[in-house]
Amino acid sequence: MNKKIVLKKTPIGIPKESDFKLVESPLPELRKNEVLTKTIHLSLDPYIRGVITGKHIYAEKVNIGDTIVGRTIAKVIDSKNSDIQVGEIIMCSNGWQEYGVSDGEGIRKIDPSSAPLSTNLGILGMPGLTAYAGLLVYGEPKKDDVVVVSAASGPVGCMVGQIAQIHGAKAIGIAGSEEKCNVVKEKFGFAECINYKTENLSERIKEVCPNGLDIYYDNVGGETLDIMTKNLAMFARIVLCGFMTQYNLATPPPGPNLGPIVGSRASIKGVVVYDHYDKQQEFITLASQWLKEGKINYIEDEVFGIENTPMHFCSLMRGENFGKTIITIN
Amino acid sequence: MNKKIVLKKTPIGIPKESDFKLVESPLPELRKNEVLTKTIHLSLDPYIRGVITGKHIYAEKVNIGDTIVGRTIAKVIDSKNSDIQVGEIIMCSNGWQEYGVSDGEGIRKIDPSSAPLSTNLGILGMPGLTAYAGLLVYGEPKKDDVVVVSAASGPVGCMVGQIAQIHGAKAIGIAGSEEKCNVVKEKFGFAECINYKTENLSERIKEVCPNGLDIYYDNVGGETLDIMTKNLAMFARIVLCGFMTQYNLATPPPGPNLGPIVGSRASIKGVVVYDHYDKQQEFITLASQWLKEGKINYIEDEVFGIENTPMHFCSLMRGENFGKTIITIN
Repeated sequence: MNKKIVLKKTPIGIPKESDFKLVESPLPELRKNEVLTKTIHLSLDPYIRGVITGKHIYAEKVNIGDTIVGRTIAKVIDSKNSDIQVGEIIMCSNGWQEYGVSDGEGIRKIDPSSAPLSTNLGILGMPGLTAYAGLLVYGEPKKDDVVVVSAASGPVGCMVGQIAQIHGAKAIGIAGSEEKCNVVKEKFGFAECINYKTENLSERIKEVCPNGLDIYYDNVGGETLDIMTKNLAMFARIVLCGFMTQYNLATPPPGPNLGPIVGSRASIKGVVVYDHYDKQQEFITLASQWLKEGKINYIEDEVFGIENTPMHFCSLMRGENFGKTIITIN
Repeated sequence: MNKKIVLKKTPIGIPKESDFKLVESPLPELRKNEVLTKTIHLSLDPYIRGVITGKHIYAEKVNIGDTIVGRTIAKVIDSKNSDIQVGEIIMCSNGWQEYGVSDGEGIRKIDPSSAPLSTNLGILGMPGLTAYAGLLVYGEPKKDDVVVVSAASGPVGCMVGQIAQIHGAKAIGIAGSEEKCNVVKEKFGFAECINYKTENLSERIKEVCPNGLDIYYDNVGGETLDIMTKNLAMFARIVLCGFMTQYNLATPPPGPNLGPIVGSRASIKGVVVYDHYDKQQEFITLASQWLKEGKINYIEDEVFGIENTPMHFCSLMRGENFGKTIITIN
């Protein structure tokens, strides 16, 4: 039998566990070219909140009764596809369930010896590529640039800061707890990390970046983005990546006044990871090497068992996660 | 005697005539290298509102009792500068007064035969260069692009639309009266012009630009900017130039939510004309030729007499001007 989590009610505001339901279903019969896989790791990401309510730019809305979508690392346990062998590990999109079926379309084989499997969902996966492409293509970091990133302890944020440092820039983080800030500084090597919940962000950013920000990589939107636009260095680059402050809102709130963008000759661009798959192989090669050499670190917020997925996702959407949010299925 | 307008009270909100005062003073004695000029045309521009209250990025605040600043076309009536002869016409910054003194620094000689003198303050002057540089450098118009511009009957707006058409793009205007919209269409050749005061801008922009905007050249900020961000074509360029909706406000209001910038892969950049003086000669040569060939038109909102300057400026800051706002002094 397969255990899966389906949508019970479309969430309003921050998702609740009662918006989801665990159901069991028999394992499907495989057709030609299909493989059956058992999920090992399931990635939980904030963008899934938008997918569920049909606000994602590409993914289809999740309907009531349907399995919640998501990227997974899974092991092939049965195969009618000559290109994929039983025992191989693949990156696929099983979603929130223990078993999934794929015809091989859009999957990627994973070499389990190259890095811990779960990193393929985090710092070596889509969050990592998002950080890499967004920072390099739109941020264009140069030596000694001051790079500020919000949600700095998350998989995108920690990679932005670490890649910035590899390029000779100075990384400054913003995060929501003392524990997160400590990890950002000690484990990820950021020069400083501001706790926006307990410190006065407007004042602290001026102290920490007296000459302004050269790059602001934004994962949150809202007031943090507004404050950063008022602290830009000349020719600053703002990279819009995530809007954690508004995923739970029905109507997008106003944004920052754009007057300072003119005065500081700044640019604003958004990063959509789907546009940058041409950089994926280059990124994985580089980042795997950085990981082996100890140049980059990561943290994971791992919970075991498919039945705990709704709880863990709701916690993520309240900003209570600490590192890349993963469900591991034994 | 020299008549001039000085600041009486720092304006709060929309400026009032009582914020200014007409005073008379004797003509100054010229020192070595100085010239005395008589103002012919004085340019009134919205950015002066920011200068008066010290919000301009470069210009010094105007103090109580000081003459209001501004660009002028003037005739040299006395000269102790061997490079500038009596009778020559120059572009200078006399401000709101009938006579001014210059040491020749920052002035530009004007050939009175090449175009009507006042156009050097409007479509051939700084507003024209602002339109040209902002549109070409940050907007990058291509054939058949849809270019939307707000404050379309003003000197920047009308030039943006006309230069866009010269580059094969389709110009759509936004303006605040039926009369302005008619001129924008009939005199400046825009394909359409929406009256934001009487029409539903959100609905009309979708009708007029069903495939979205490729370029939005913004002279106003506020709700118009917000609506445009929701109607962008893929890879759209937003050029921030003016913030007419907020010059009279003490505190800048919130701006647009930036979510749509990510989805449409748009870019946001601001234009500051001072960055583009390297294009001034090229622009004047081109635009003078376009004017002679009838490829560009202009309208002026001309009032006579220095004593009418405060009234005309207050009217401009209420958005009641119609075309480039000029004071002509006989």
